[in-house]
Amino acid sequence: MSGRTDHTLVTLIPGDGIGPECVDAARRIVEATGAPIDWEEAEAGAEVFKKGLPSGVPPETMDSITRTRVALKGPLETPVGFGEKSANVTLRKLFETYANVRPVRELPGVTTTYSGRGIDLVMVRENVEDLYAGIEHMQTPGVAQCLKLISVKGSEKIARFAFEFARSEYRSSVACATKANIMKFTEGTLKRVFERVAPDYPELGSWHVIVDNCAHQLVKKPEQYDVIVTTNMNGDILSDLSSALVGGLGFAPSANIGNEIAIFEAVHGSAPKYAGKDVINPTAVILSAVMMLRYLEMFEEAEAIEHAVLVTLESGVLTGDVVGYDRGTPTTTYRDTIIGNLGKRTENWIVRDHRPLQLPVLDAAPDYVRPASRAVVGLDVFVESPLSAAELGASLMELTSDTRLSLKMISSRGTKVFPPTGAITDTLDHWRCRFIIKENPGDLPDEDVHQLLARISRRHMWMHTEKLQEFEGELGFTRDQGEN
Amino acid sequence: MSGRTDHTLVTLIPGDGIGPECVDAARRIVEATGAPIDWEEAEAGAEVFKKGLPSGVPPETMDSITRTRVALKGPLETPVGFGEKSANVTLRKLFETYANVRPVRELPGVTTTYSGRGIDLVMVRENVEDLYAGIEHMQTPGVAQCLKLISVKGSEKIARFAFEFARSEYRSSVACATKANIMKFTEGTLKRVFERVAPDYPELGSWHVIVDNCAHQLVKKPEQYDVIVTTNMNGDILSDLSSALVGGLGFAPSANIGNEIAIFEAVHGSAPKYAGKDVINPTAVILSAVMMLRYLEMFEEAEAIEHAVLVTLESGVLTGDVVGYDRGTPTTTYRDTIIGNLGKRTENWIVRDHRPLQLPVLDAAPDYVRPASRAVVGLDVFVESPLSAAELGASLMELTSDTRLSLKMISSRGTKVFPPTGAITDTLDHWRCRFIIKENPGDLPDEDVHQLLARISRRHMWMHTEKLQEFEGELGFTRDQGEN
Repeated sequence: MSGRTDHTLVTLIPGDGIGPECVDAARRIVEATGAPIDWEEAEAGAEVFKKGLPSGVPPETMDSITRTRVALKGPLETPVGFGEKSANVTLRKLFETYANVRPVRELPGVTTTYSGRGIDLVMVRENVEDLYAGIEHMQTPGVAQCLKLISVKGSEKIARFAFEFARSEYRSSVACATKANIMKFTEGTLKRVFERVAPDYPELGSWHVIVDNCAHQLVKKPEQYDVIVTTNMNGDILSDLSSALVGGLGFAPSANIGNEIAIFEAVHGSAPKYAGKDVINPTAVILSAVMMLRYLEMFEEAEAIEHAVLVTLESGVLTGDVVGYDRGTPTTTYRDTIIGNLGKRTENWIVRDHRPLQLPVLDAAPDYVRPASRAVVGLDVFVESPLSAAELGASLMELTSDTRLSLKMISSRGTKVFPPTGAITDTLDHWRCRFIIKENPGDLPDEDVHQLLARISRRHMWMHTEKLQEFEGELGFTRDQGEN
Repeated sequence: MSGRTDHTLVTLIPGDGIGPECVDAARRIVEATGAPIDWEEAEAGAEVFKKGLPSGVPPETMDSITRTRVALKGPLETPVGFGEKSANVTLRKLFETYANVRPVRELPGVTTTYSGRGIDLVMVRENVEDLYAGIEHMQTPGVAQCLKLISVKGSEKIARFAFEFARSEYRSSVACATKANIMKFTEGTLKRVFERVAPDYPELGSWHVIVDNCAHQLVKKPEQYDVIVTTNMNGDILSDLSSALVGGLGFAPSANIGNEIAIFEAVHGSAPKYAGKDVINPTAVILSAVMMLRYLEMFEEAEAIEHAVLVTLESGVLTGDVVGYDRGTPTTTYRDTIIGNLGKRTENWIVRDHRPLQLPVLDAAPDYVRPASRAVVGLDVFVESPLSAAELGASLMELTSDTRLSLKMISSRGTKVFPPTGAITDTLDHWRCRFIIKENPGDLPDEDVHQLLARISRRHMWMHTEKLQEFEGELGFTRDQGEN
């Protein structure tokens, strides 16, 4: 921990299980390149949870990352019975590392079904929004809800980041994978923003692909992709799918990059059963350190390590996860072989050129989108009731007949059930009741919303409301299956 | 359209693009087996949309399916500019076909990266709940929301269906793939229900797998899976991933099965550019018809067609999608070859035995889960504001100081930002403000909810509320990142 002022300080989190061995290997290899880095060791994970800290991340570690702005970390465990949230996710969210970057490339000696096809792609996954926010509410005793939230600002950050990352690696295209055909507001936001910003990167090809087709294509012809940008939950699945194309989690590095802070880590878990046995594959953390060096613009050191890893793998020095744990090269030998290969260059495998990554800077104001006009045109009230749709509909119409709103329809999980449509729909005790303002055009004041809720409360239980809004004349809500 | 009373009536929807050719091939092959089926042709899709019907499904088609209870259909198109919803999805939802079944098996002559590994799995995807309900609301001009709804009843239906389907095909195991580690209420519901019902099927192995790992494993070692059951959106991705393992959409049949009605269809689209050219691959619809025959317990006819398809493919008779459109067998020749091969049996490829599928029958009452005790303990109010978190927090505390609720925290997309945590969080104009009842234990009457909303309305815009409920002493809501 020298603190020499010409050195960059990096927070080093050994983590749990096999983490310390992986992180130690990466640290020694980085040091062997002479990269001007000083390390500040910090704690997080299982031991911290067990001390009673429900986040798994102590304030000193938060302080260290806030100061150094860069962390290299091993996997963190959330021990069963301690804490509700993953410490890995906590770090990503608290430091607004909105871009999860996972390179997926074929490596020498690591044979898979796809060997020889030259897979070399990067998955860029939005890292702080979407279902991963984990905002859940039991709507009724038997119906659970999670909110999927996607913002224009968050989408613009991740879309621009993907193009900038492609530029920094001299790549040729960015594909955007969403489910915009089913979720036109949430998933559609990323698609629309992606298509809007793409012309700012004219040297890069760009196209949109439906996310399920993207999964299909990744299995069928992964070599067609260069950079893929996607939303958080879908990206979780696509990233893990992709890492399997090239040899699994032992070789899967990742970066979590925000505009202020970046955290580099392996994708794999803490694998406690292999810990301390000098048998594990530290490549994922080593390649994460390579990503970190490039982020710090230490391009020569990064390139030296990448070449040394490729030369090592080409020479057949492979860990137990690849060749079997009875025959694998010990972790420390693997590490030292890579150190010994620093300076050598592979002739057969590509190491990309890199240039500095430009992080997108957006308008910092919270109200990122400012419409010229807007109005509240109705209210969705989610009611819990054991009544039938017809009974509930009749009751709600009676209760609200003299308000400024009228009941337009009731739906069950997105399918209209009142007025009746002739469909066969299995209903639950969870009903979405849509009320629309009678005047047209209209703009509903809150007093009328409060009155409507008070009327419904006379006879029914409601647990959730959503205002129906219009922005610049466009409906800000979807219609239900069967709704006109 | 004979109407012989010993025959089963099936609604036949030719659909759009290549649909009529695929459906015609399947129909003629089924007829050639002598299966006791009469067909009732019905319309849906592009032409119906263009006539101005926004669902794409005319009442006569609804009536036909309601009467016959079984449909075989081609792909339906939603022409750009007509209708907001897919007619395929409309049919699934209006008839409560809650189980989407997609078998994925290796076929002779259809070479893929995975050939020779004996892939033979079935993806069972929940088909009517989840994000696919498409319930979206713009929360602010720049923040979109989609509701992910998962019910205990829906989960029990799909979990039991998966086990029953495995039984009907004499399979050995069912894996359940969810993201329960991040979404413990929604995704967790399927996991918990699956684990609760599994002991009712003691002859079947069962285990849970995190959905991203499932995607990884499907690429790495797909032969480990037999039946996989999963939620709707994740299942969409996993299904399309899986179909690529064995040769793509031309060979991917599917069934949408509910307790009253079943709809059999290919997974592929209408591919208009190949329509009418006698070049397309009708196998997916043919194999969908095989699934239909088994559903109708016409096991011998189903087996005869499955053998004939395998014999045809083994003999090298392959359509243009497999061998190139300049060299492919015409659709009609392919169809007639299969008809000619009826009665032949393959020696090299497995055709499974089948027994009747038992559909799970559950308590029909809408209030499927009835807790012994419950209470409302607070309210989440989602506020749109250009203020900072600190300013908004101070204002809300002042406004609500003499109510029965106190402001516990404010979060931005699931990460706590007030009281301040020291985290770096990029905030938007969308804030989730959590109010908790001051008494403990307490149960908040609606009057206090209305009063709180009225207080907030004095100075701020809110667009969404969620009651915070407890059921049998368990919290019915999640905590945020950084919340104690």
